[in-house]
Amino acid sequence: MKVGYKIWLENDGKVFGRGPYALLKGVEETSSLHQAAARMGMSYSKAWRIISNAEKKLGFFLLARTRGGLDGGGSKITPAAKELMGRCEHLEKDVGEAIERIYRQHFGPSTGSGRAQGDS
Amino acid sequence: MKVGYKIWLENDGKVFGRGPYALLKGVEETSSLHQAAARMGMSYSKAWRIISNAEKKLGFFLLARTRGGLDGGGSKITPAAKELMGRCEHLEKDVGEAIERIYRQHFGPSTGSGRAQGDS
Repeated sequence: MKVGYKIWLENDGKVFGRGPYALLKGVEETSSLHQAAARMGMSYSKAWRIISNAEKKLGFFLLARTRGGLDGGGSKITPAAKELMGRCEHLEKDVGEAIERIYRQHFGPSTGSGRAQGDS
Repeated sequence: MKVGYKIWLENDGKVFGRGPYALLKGVEETSSLHQAAARMGMSYSKAWRIISNAEKKLGFFLLARTRGGLDGGGSKITPAAKELMGRCEHLEKDVGEAIERIYRQHFGPSTGSGRAQGDS
């Protein structure tokens, strides 16, 4: 048995979590929200809504439109998005380590296979 | 802005989290899975399924049926369930404190109201 977790930033509801983070990471790597969405099996309109909602709640832009290029322009992440992503990466890493340590204190070592399971 | 989180025990899928914990807490207080489910606005059959699935994954019983009483018997939590709940309470408390501390390291103090929000 082991411990699972999810963390997110909130302010009267979720503001930023793994979904928007993964989309921004995809845009950073592909320079395209279309491609970032497709990689996650998500429609472009849903991806756009997720980013747009996060921008509204955060109060700053996460994506900037770029001009030119073969497909007539794509997207890139803003410096503010980059900084937010960096903070979230540190948060995730430190929280993951802390949770694992605290879990071991109360439940003993994590195991991949875990205890015997029931019959069905 | 502040940080939100959820933790659970897992072993090839979720084993035990806030849902089953809240049901067991309700049974501890009401001696009835019917009442525990009703308090959470949940059908009895759904509550029963949640507990039964957790029992299978854990490999031990969480609820025992009691006899007698006005309604012809109710439920009580097993000693193993009580111990699990205690460990989960410690886990939640320590993890909550650690996450809050780590969040402050990377994002500054939590606020109830948070940053300025967008227009809509």
